[in-house]
Amino acid sequence: RKRVLITGGAGFVGSHLVDKLMLDGHEVIALDNYFTGRKKNVEHWIGHPNFEMVHHDVVNPYFVEVDQIYHLASPASPPHYMYNPVKTIKTNTLGTINMLGLAKRVKATVLLASTSEVYGDPEVHPQPESYWGHVNTIGPRSCYDEGKRVAESLMIAYNKQENVKIRIARIFNTFGPRMHMNDGRVVSNFIIQALQDNPITIYGNGTQTRSFQYVTDLVDGLIKLMNSNYSAPVNIGNPEEHTIGQFATIIRDLVPGSKSEIINLESQQDDPQQRRPDIRRAAEQISWKPQILMKDGLLKTIEYFRAEIDRNK
Amino acid sequence: RKRVLITGGAGFVGSHLVDKLMLDGHEVIALDNYFTGRKKNVEHWIGHPNFEMVHHDVVNPYFVEVDQIYHLASPASPPHYMYNPVKTIKTNTLGTINMLGLAKRVKATVLLASTSEVYGDPEVHPQPESYWGHVNTIGPRSCYDEGKRVAESLMIAYNKQENVKIRIARIFNTFGPRMHMNDGRVVSNFIIQALQDNPITIYGNGTQTRSFQYVTDLVDGLIKLMNSNYSAPVNIGNPEEHTIGQFATIIRDLVPGSKSEIINLESQQDDPQQRRPDIRRAAEQISWKPQILMKDGLLKTIEYFRAEIDRNK
Ligand SMILES: NC(=O)c1ccc[n+]([C@@H]2O[C@H](COP(=O)([O-])OP(=O)(O)OC[C@H]3O[C@@H](n4cnc5c(N)ncnc54)[C@H](O)[C@@H]3O)[C@@H](O)[C@H]2O)c1
Ligand SMILES: NC(=O)c1ccc[n+]([C@@H]2O[C@H](COP(=O)([O-])OP(=O)(O)OC[C@H]3O[C@@H](n4cnc5c(N)ncnc54)[C@H](O)[C@@H]3O)[C@@H](O)[C@H]2O)c1
Ligand SMILES: O=c1ccn([C@@H]2O[C@H](COP(=O)(O)OP(=O)(O)O)[C@@H](O)[C@H]2O)c(=O)[nH]1
Ligand SMILES: O=c1ccn([C@@H]2O[C@H](COP(=O)(O)OP(=O)(O)O)[C@@H](O)[C@H]2O)c(=O)[nH]1
Ligand SMILES: O=c1ccn([C@@H]2O[C@H](COP(=O)(O)OP(=O)(O)O)[C@@H](O)[C@H]2O)c(=O)[nH]1
Ligand SMILES: O=c1ccn([C@@H]2O[C@H](COP(=O)(O)OP(=O)(O)O)[C@@H](O)[C@H]2O)c(=O)[nH]1
Repeated sequence: RKRVLITGGAGFVGSHLVDKLMLDGHEVIALDNYFTGRKKNVEHWIGHPNFEMVHHDVVNPYFVEVDQIYHLASPASPPHYMYNPVKTIKTNTLGTINMLGLAKRVKATVLLASTSEVYGDPEVHPQPESYWGHVNTIGPRSCYDEGKRVAESLMIAYNKQENVKIRIARIFNTFGPRMHMNDGRVVSNFIIQALQDNPITIYGNGTQTRSFQYVTDLVDGLIKLMNSNYSAPVNIGNPEEHTIGQFATIIRDLVPGSKSEIINLESQQDDPQQRRPDIRRAAEQISWKPQILMKDGLLKTIEYFRAEIDRNK
Repeated sequence: RKRVLITGGAGFVGSHLVDKLMLDGHEVIALDNYFTGRKKNVEHWIGHPNFEMVHHDVVNPYFVEVDQIYHLASPASPPHYMYNPVKTIKTNTLGTINMLGLAKRVKATVLLASTSEVYGDPEVHPQPESYWGHVNTIGPRSCYDEGKRVAESLMIAYNKQENVKIRIARIFNTFGPRMHMNDGRVVSNFIIQALQDNPITIYGNGTQTRSFQYVTDLVDGLIKLMNSNYSAPVNIGNPEEHTIGQFATIIRDLVPGSKSEIINLESQQDDPQQRRPDIRRAAEQISWKPQILMKDGLLKTIEYFRAEIDRNK
């Protein structure tokens, strides 16, 4: 039984991680500033003796005694991280420095939720961890991409210099229940559009690709990585790749009776054109690979959004 | 007449910038924590009514009223920036945030001393500003490279969001008097080795290239950029490119009577293999190009080191 801190614990991924660690019997402290997270995501644990929810912003120092830190606090979808780019960078720099300072003081292991965005608009496909990436330092995504890149550099620096035990997960696109209705990500957008018979909006010609993993697969991978001995970056994602165009059709077909048409809007600046993880390292080092079929994951997610839409009526 | 803050003002480049701005009649505040800078570099101005030297670390907030900020504070040579990688990243993140917060409050223009290292080990040659770079987020140089990359992203974020007026200089290798004796950079190493008849140490086979500018050219470029209206990154460097092997011979030949032999040592991890600026943007946007011939610059630098060595005897 471990004492575990989860920053961003009221968010989409964080709340699923809370669920799993609570079910496994650990003591969990979830920390969040509620920028995109919601108390509702963890409300079923409130009052449980092993659970604590802390309202705090990671850009400010935080003191607690824990064994493990899952550091997930950061806006994650393009509209959210571009909403306040200065704050996005502060969260990923100051926030990561504070969590590393905390880990150093209490000798905890810290896992960084890094991202496939460190590869940017990749020129190597699929992306292995050895690929250095292709990122525009001054583009609209740079607040997030460069913030996460330097967060990785901070992890390595505290590891080398202060012997902090580190884990770096490079997370690829993830979906599932508790994604935000309005965070503008493709899965939530397309499902909501299909459920409401609104046009399904493809940005650009739809030939750009992504690979989507279901959130419980990710949570499994994060926990396996944390409890391994491996301190270099590890891709966590599902290598099943689709174009965004295909994806629009797949989702519409999974929503019976949807009358949505599929339309093309303007493409987005610096939008990565392809993305698929090479996950051989995860298989070798932490014996992980995704288990959930995309279709099964999508059906659960569609049910979640259907209920959310009904609730909000 | 302007009020100008120079962070890193007691360093190599900073002190030459102090000289030029003082001679032009401005009020200059030089700020430094003396990590690699020395009071000696600016001692000739101490007591001058237009000059102030402040002992301060940029990772801590600093309050002053100024019109322009040249933000140069950062260790700059590989041995110095790798000495304390955590501090290198803190300086480039927290330090840049503080200077941008200051610029925002007093409506000053801030110029960031960025670096050709944002291009990393480049796969495009020569490097134009539009090149996104090739940097290892977890390599030994990442504390500096990623620190500077995210500093650029911070500049852009404060510009877009808070209307801070910004300038970004991507500085290529620079040499001249007041380089540190022991900072391990190639020009200082080779000159001191040649002057002392010690072996001239090439790391690797010496086919890697660099392009070297003389420090007064750089200072000219920084001032022109600051007083322009241009807020995108601008390369400031001399496009004359040499291999490190050639460079060893050039320097030995400029030190009459040197009996140094030229030797090859192990190559350094992640050492960029080639580097040369494309400086068309500087020509077009700020009417700048380098004026000093490498040989003339080297002769002045050799004289400086000869005097330093004598003084230390
Ligand atoms: N979901 C994905 O597809 C994906 C892909 C790659 C990486 N990631 C990373 O995984 C992590 C979780 O992402 P998510 O999809 O759950 O997003 P999310 O927005 O649901 O979760 C992020 C949580 O962090 C909180 N937060 C943001 N800034 C904070 C601050 N300064 N202090 C305290 N809390 C703060 C938010 O309120 C939110 O609860 C993020 O770090 C993200 O970058 C996610
Ligand atoms: N010289 C080059 O070839 C070169 C090339 C590219 C970029 N640059 C950039 O130009 C700037 C100046 O470089 P330089 O060659 O003069 O190096 P330098 O080491 O001589 O100067 C840097 C100065 O910053 C000071 N400093 C470092 N950390 C500080 C902190 N936390 N607070 C306050 N002061 C601090 C140092 O004491 C020093 O005086 C740096 O930002 C460097 O990254 C230099
Ligand atoms: O339990 C802790 C210990 C440290 N920190 C913060 O972590 C940061 C980095 O810590 P480090 O030890 O590197 O920095 P220092 O305290 O030496 O400046 C500092 O801003 C601390 O305030 C924290 O939030 N919680
Ligand atoms: O309504 C939408 C939302 C997103 N996208 C595209 O879907 C891909 C994934 O976008 P998302 O924001 O989900 O994630 P990221 O770009 O960070 O991978 C990108 O190519 C977007 O341009 C789209 O075509 N329509
Ligand atoms: O004259 C100033 C104004 C601000 N700051 C610092 O600059 C940083 C960033 O400023 P910003 O306005 O973005 O941050 P905020 O004060 O809103 O947190 C803060 O840590 C301030 O302490 C500073 O050093 N000098
Ligand atoms: O004694 C030395 C010092 C440096 N170098 C090489 O010279 C080049 C420039 O190194 P420096 O540290 O001056 O600058 P940077 O690598 O940051 O351009 C690199 O390829 C180094 O490996 C070398 O061969 N011998």
